[in-house]
Amino acid sequence: METYLYEQFLEVLGKEKISKSESELYRHSRDESSHPYVEPDFVYFPEGVEDIVKVLKIANEHKIPVTPYGAGSGLEGQAIPIHKGISMNFDNMKKIIEFYPEDLMITVEPGITRLQLNEFINKHGLYFPIDPGADASIGGMIANNASGTTAVRYGSMRDQILDLEVVLANGTVIHTGSKAKKSSSGYNLNGIMAGSEGTLGVITKATLKLHGIPEKVLAARCTFNTPGECAEAAQAVLSCGIQVLRMELVDAESIKQVNSYGGYAFPEEHSLFFEFAGTPNIVEEEASVVEELMKEFGCSNWERANTPKDRADLWKARHELAYSYKHIKGKASTGADACVPISKLAEMVVFGRTLLEESGLIGGVFGHVGDGNFHTMVMYDPNDPVEKAKAKYTDDQIAMKAIELGGSCTGEHGVGVGKMKYQLKEHGEAVELMKSIKLLFDPNGILNPGKIFI
Amino acid sequence: METYLYEQFLEVLGKEKISKSESELYRHSRDESSHPYVEPDFVYFPEGVEDIVKVLKIANEHKIPVTPYGAGSGLEGQAIPIHKGISMNFDNMKKIIEFYPEDLMITVEPGITRLQLNEFINKHGLYFPIDPGADASIGGMIANNASGTTAVRYGSMRDQILDLEVVLANGTVIHTGSKAKKSSSGYNLNGIMAGSEGTLGVITKATLKLHGIPEKVLAARCTFNTPGECAEAAQAVLSCGIQVLRMELVDAESIKQVNSYGGYAFPEEHSLFFEFAGTPNIVEEEASVVEELMKEFGCSNWERANTPKDRADLWKARHELAYSYKHIKGKASTGADACVPISKLAEMVVFGRTLLEESGLIGGVFGHVGDGNFHTMVMYDPNDPVEKAKAKYTDDQIAMKAIELGGSCTGEHGVGVGKMKYQLKEHGEAVELMKSIKLLFDPNGILNPGKIFI
Ligand SMILES: Cc1cc2nc3c(=O)[nH]c(=O)nc-3n(C[C@H](O)[C@H](O)[C@H](O)COP(=O)(O)OP(=O)(O)OC[C@H]3O[C@@H](n4cnc5c(N)ncnc54)[C@H](O)[C@@H]3O)c2cc1C
Ligand SMILES: Cc1cc2nc3c(=O)[nH]c(=O)nc-3n(C[C@H](O)[C@H](O)[C@H](O)COP(=O)(O)OP(=O)(O)OC[C@H]3O[C@@H](n4cnc5c(N)ncnc54)[C@H](O)[C@@H]3O)c2cc1C
Repeated sequence: METYLYEQFLEVLGKEKISKSESELYRHSRDESSHPYVEPDFVYFPEGVEDIVKVLKIANEHKIPVTPYGAGSGLEGQAIPIHKGISMNFDNMKKIIEFYPEDLMITVEPGITRLQLNEFINKHGLYFPIDPGADASIGGMIANNASGTTAVRYGSMRDQILDLEVVLANGTVIHTGSKAKKSSSGYNLNGIMAGSEGTLGVITKATLKLHGIPEKVLAARCTFNTPGECAEAAQAVLSCGIQVLRMELVDAESIKQVNSYGGYAFPEEHSLFFEFAGTPNIVEEEASVVEELMKEFGCSNWERANTPKDRADLWKARHELAYSYKHIKGKASTGADACVPISKLAEMVVFGRTLLEESGLIGGVFGHVGDGNFHTMVMYDPNDPVEKAKAKYTDDQIAMKAIELGGSCTGEHGVGVGKMKYQLKEHGEAVELMKSIKLLFDPNGILNPGKIFI
Repeated sequence: METYLYEQFLEVLGKEKISKSESELYRHSRDESSHPYVEPDFVYFPEGVEDIVKVLKIANEHKIPVTPYGAGSGLEGQAIPIHKGISMNFDNMKKIIEFYPEDLMITVEPGITRLQLNEFINKHGLYFPIDPGADASIGGMIANNASGTTAVRYGSMRDQILDLEVVLANGTVIHTGSKAKKSSSGYNLNGIMAGSEGTLGVITKATLKLHGIPEKVLAARCTFNTPGECAEAAQAVLSCGIQVLRMELVDAESIKQVNSYGGYAFPEEHSLFFEFAGTPNIVEEEASVVEELMKEFGCSNWERANTPKDRADLWKARHELAYSYKHIKGKASTGADACVPISKLAEMVVFGRTLLEESGLIGGVFGHVGDGNFHTMVMYDPNDPVEKAKAKYTDDQIAMKAIELGGSCTGEHGVGVGKMKYQLKEHGEAVELMKSIKLLFDPNGILNPGKIFI
């Protein structure tokens, strides 16, 4: 960035809100993916919507890239400022703007993380159930249309949004919805902002749906002989109409990994993890119906997590899965995030597991099978081009196969730089329309340039 | 339309698929609203996507308006071809393209109605729950983002869409989604097509989510002293987390109306109607919890519909509500469709009821209170300008107040020509962006011109 421009930013934005420190540039050069790091010219810490209007107006005039940065937990390089410019960090925008407990609704700033949000609302008997594992920011979760283990019951981030305050590239501030639970007015802008990865506007406030904390929660798990059998059993649960809160597949390899990482003693077989939530009677009924069904499908090791500690352990282990691989010394990780129609899930999971075997790399298959969404995690030596190529090959094959089966290359992680190459295959002619929407919202291409579309 | 153009259409589209008969022009000049009728130049009955590509290419070249027409049950004049041109009717596009029972999913053509769809899938133990009362077409329901009594559990049409095949104004065919249950790929086009009322593209196929028919369904009702008490009680049900299938408010006036229209004997007081669905145990548990809660809130006349006939009667009566007013001789009807945060519902309902009293017109308040969505129905003599003005005044006041309370002028009926005047108040600066989206999709303004935005 040219000096005169940087000085203009300094003057207008105030130097307390700008950082060029080595550690901040480093932190904002990356996310949790292994996509190449790029440092921004500087990091900006806005304190409210007016600050964001200011920065975008100058950036738009001079065509300076602006890349929003949430908690940096993205897995596809979404927050990496690959064309440099400004990284915009929301650490100073974490306020709860308004809380409406009777409406099961809250308005927050984008920098608040899901755990911070829950810490506040749990005291009032409410919770925000979307759980992408990492303690991501609400802004980042909306921008990625994140979801996770509870999507089978509550849907993705897109389904939680009532209204967003958004600053457009030219500095215009709009609201994308209202506080009504449903509406047929105007065009649906909530939906298009969710998953737009900072390329269409900067989210400065979000009004979200909340849910009552269920009176009772019960976890259980069981094992099957093959990942394919797990997927078939999961399909049966969905068809019978039981509203599980979570239903996760973890393959034997991953159970081994997490047992050794976290000191657990789960049976090292292909497993389904369940969670049920509701009144005690409903939970009991649901757990019994599913237990019976799983046994019909030939499961072993059906076990309820009877104590709160058992339940906490089970989901702690599930959440540690990614880290249990990632901590392996000297290895980088990559992974697929395919989502397919449920009837194709068994085929896909077997396909993924076979690719992993063939690659000879350490890796596992796990995921949110209730949505037909599953991940692979593949470990490779980043200095070994052959291992790296093999790892990328498995990702590639899985994404392509998912699309061929009518599914999506990314169920929840988003496109970023990693999934750009599949957009045309997945969306066909619609890609041109999407690109023209980008151009309409951001004619100078300043908002997180170089993402989603090639 | 100039003769040479009409002849070009005749030649390219085939005269068997075109009608200019008086009865067809008449039928396509109106919907169920009382907005002024306008006849199209001709009605076109396409038989597949290629036909639609053909007609749009010529229409786009010559800037001829094309207005899709579903079942004509819209309440805001959405399907009225106010700038004449072509009315496009989907009576010959009602096919089930592909049925995926294991995936709880189906792909259909837009002309199929919800009852026709259900007739097919019910045999397989599945159902499509969105129920706007009228036997609307799937295309029309998507285009209006319709919902109805079951939205409290299943959401609106937007929430049912996995993928749409859409023909854009220039004849390009796109798919807006995939068969994956969730996705973070590309921009969300499903959402923006839902509720676009035929102004952004013509829907030629829809892949929708289905649901298992609940093992047991149980209906119940109770009464309160005021509509406000009904609304407060409804709010309590939502907060306690019970997933009712339906929860409807019907005020005393409307109960009187429907009793006399349909020969029912419901207590003529302000009422809540409930429906619970699930396994027998879950249904029993939910009904008991709600019964207890309603009694805490001081309800009277709690009564379960114990036989299937009782249950059918209860919902038949609810569905006949609109007609029980509409059949009144010599009167036209109009009505509001406000949606507000639940905590504002009691205030809004009382406001609506008071306006009706003050107007001196026959009318009622009823609606889908689980979503904060409610309707008024006001009867007026269309030849009496004072009555007409009073009726429109109540609609107006309710829409404006809903927006002021943070809600929406239309929860489900859509904008059409009737709610255009509230768009700026509801969406503010976002209206400009919405208009530019319209221009991007349809630069020549041929798709259902004159709707949504002034
Ligand atoms: C161990 C682990 C497990 C994970 N499991 C899951 C999972 O199960 N499900 C899942 O969905 N994800 C998962 N993720 C991925 C990640 O947590 C999500 O993608 C999350 O949404 C990222 O949020 P963030 O705040 O970290 O955003 P960042 O990574 O900082 O940014 C993500 C994107 O959001 C944009 N953005 C951020 N804030 C704003 C704003 N205010 N306005 C506009 N754009 C903005 C950025 O520009 C960027 O494009 C996992 C990650 C890890 C490390
Ligand atoms: C008694 C009664 C009760 C009602 N109750 C409810 C209710 O509870 N909830 C509710 O939501 N609605 C309700 N409605 C309104 C109505 O049923 C809905 O708005 C429904 O969605 C209209 O569908 P339709 O097929 O009749 O569409 P039409 O009225 O024919 O058209 C509606 C719009 O859809 C567009 N359209 C139709 N097909 C296509 C296509 N293939 N591609 C693109 N655009 C298309 C048209 O251009 C038009 O803009 C009720 C109506 C009546 C008469």
